[in-house]
Formats: sequence, structure tokens, C-alpha cells
Amino acid sequence: MESHEAACFLNAAETDAHILITVFFEKREPVGPYRLTVPARRTLHVRFNNLTDPEPIPRDTPYASLIESDVPVVVQHTRLDSRQSANALLSTVAFPCNE
Amino acid sequence: MESHEAACFLNAAETDAHILITVFFEKREPVGPYRLTVPARRTLHVRFNNLTDPEPIPRDTPYASLIESDVPVVVQHTRLDSRQSANALLSTVAFPCNE
Amino acid sequence: MESHEAACFLNAAETDAHILITVFFEKREPVGPYRLTVPARRTLHVRFNNLTDPEPIPRDTPYASLIESDVPVVVQHTRLDSRQSANALLSTVAFPCNE
Amino acid sequence: MESHEAACFLNAAETDAHILITVFFEKREPVGPYRLTVPARRTLHVRFNNLTDPEPIPRDTPYASLIESDVPVVVQHTRLDSRQSANALLSTVAFPCNE
Repeated sequence: MESHEAACFLNAAETDAHILITVFFEKREPVGPYRLTVPARRTLHVRFNNLTDPEPIPRDTPYASLIESDVPVVVQHTRLDSRQSANALLSTVAFPCNE
Repeated sequence: MESHEAACFLNAAETDAHILITVFFEKREPVGPYRLTVPARRTLHVRFNNLTDPEPIPRDTPYASLIESDVPVVVQHTRLDSRQSANALLSTVAFPCNE
Repeated sequence: MESHEAACFLNAAETDAHILITVFFEKREPVGPYRLTVPARRTLHVRFNNLTDPEPIPRDTPYASLIESDVPVVVQHTRLDSRQSANALLSTVAFPCNE
Repeated sequence: MESHEAACFLNAAETDAHILITVFFEKREPVGPYRLTVPARRTLHVRFNNLTDPEPIPRDTPYASLIESDVPVVVQHTRLDSRQSANALLSTVAFPCNE
């Protein structure tokens, strides 16, 4: 399995959620927004490696993401580290804030 | 050990907690509610694989769960991934919200 | 290394924190309170296996703990699972609440 | 890889964030503050082993850190434990508070 980071969205509401993801780096300007829709009463599982519009996220570069939604959603961020024989799973729930 | 996901409930209150679990998927309608009671001043450990009413939760399908309770409880969600020789444990505390 | 659970306390305040820990189980009455003091401007690292007053916490029995303090503290709960060759570390920050 | 602890900062705001880190121990006075700047719209990844001013953080001594910032930031704290053949990753999001 390739190392990857993924975000799992839960939209438990009755209306679709329109998501904007902005990705921040240490030494360059942020990129984004990446646009996603999480349908009403659905989950969505997104690998960051698969985000390509407006541009692919650089590999092997640490980054952080800001996730904005027009409907309250829950986001769980997971990293699978397969650099070693035994995979390490790391998961955090996104830190919520109001703009 | 089989891979599984489990939820641990803590009801530190003096009255029983009646729990509704709704499970959401990426490509189908949510299922539930699954009904549980966490007695006053007790914990409850539930494997999602064991939830069968109204229907078993599909295996190998990503899902997220919404947990509602009539008494404040704390929920810790744990995933044991035994697909590899070394188990990976992953745990998050449920994201709290008021409806 | 033996499997164990531990709680790390941070008391960043200028006064000592008096801590009460109550431990809850699935099928028996809660035990406690266990009493600890976290001095002002200090951390404290406590293994649950070492709590003996009013009684030792049963081994191999799932439990949850309620931690009360007269001064705001931060608690990080860590589980080291050494049942397998590769240890798994699991950590959560205690869920905060006001009584 | 050496075992280490690191903090990842995200400053999604339009102004630089000035950070003060105070490190607390079990049996000695806190040290710090360590001073960092997280530029506007950037992340910063800091290994605690690299903090040397006002003094290096003692190795093999448990500690906790208090992080203060003049701009809202998100902090993710990661520990890589390489004492065993399979690395364990452990991550928590800092507990937020208002002074």
C-alpha cells in the first residue's frame, strides 16, 4: 500500500455540503481551493493524492489543510504511513472553528 | 484477531442513557437507528459487527456513525486493523454537537 | 514492557490541583475516588495499574474514567498495548466538561 | 530514525503568529518561553529536540507544553517512537483554551 493521507467527511444533514479545501505549506503560498460536494446524508472519502484541480498537492512536502463547508460536517483525517513493514495509522478529527 | 470497529460509551450520569446510532455510507441510504441502553454509572463496549437490528452493517464498506443520546455520554471509537502482522490501533473521541 | 494505561496531567496554573478519579465498568459499581495532587506548574504521570486506594483497578477489565479537578488541568490518556511484537500506542485527550 | 516529538503549526490567518512555548516537568521548574514565529498563511514544523533557547529540553524526561499565540493557530503534536522495529506514531491536537 502506498503511504497516503485521506479525509473522511460525514454530512449528516439534509442538504448537500459544498466544501473548500485550502492547503498550506511551510515555504510556499497556499494552494486551492479544491472543491468537493458531500451529498446530504452521505460520507465522502477523499485521498489528498487524488486532488488535482487547481493543481496536484506536492508529494513528500508537509502540509496542513483548512476545510470550509456551507453545512456543518465532521472531518476525520487519516494518515497511512507505509514506509516501514508495519503500517502506522494516525488519525485526528479536524479542529472546528467559526470564521 | 479479526479487524473490527468498536464504540465505548461512558455514562457517568445517574440515569440510563438511551442511544440511537445511525450509520452513513458513501453510496447508499443511511441505516438505523440501532438502539442501545447504557445503564447509569456504567460503560458499554459495542462492536459494530455485532449490530444486527434493523440490519447488519455491511463489511468492507466505509461508514461513519451519528450517535444520539438522551443523557450526556462520552464515546470513544476504536478501530483494530489486523490486516497486517502488527495490529494498528486507532482511536478518536466522538465529535460532540447539539442538534 | 507490560501493557498499561496511563494518564498524564498538566497543571499550568499557579495553584495545586486536587484530582478525583472515578473508574467505571461495564458490569459492576464504579470505584473511587482515587485522589491525586498535581502541584502548581508541574506535570504528573500516573499508571492506572499503580492506583491502589481505595482498591486496585481490576486487570483485563475494560473501564473508563471520570477525572475531576478543582483547577483546570489537561489530561492525556495513553494506552501501550504490548500483546504483540510491535507495541501500539494509543492516545486521546480527555473529553472536557463542566459538571 | 531517532525518536522525537514535534509540533506542527498552522497559521491560516493573514498576519504572523508569535508563539510562546513553555515546557512543564514533573520534578523541576518549567522552562521557557521558547519563541517562534509562524508566518501568515504558512505551516511550521518544529522538533522539540531542536529547541535550544533559553535551554535544550532534557532528553528522556517526560514533559508537557503550553503554547500561547497572539493569532489563532492550530497545533498538532506528534510523537515518533522508534524504540522498537516498527515505529509507532501518536498524534493529538492541542487542547485549546483562553487564558
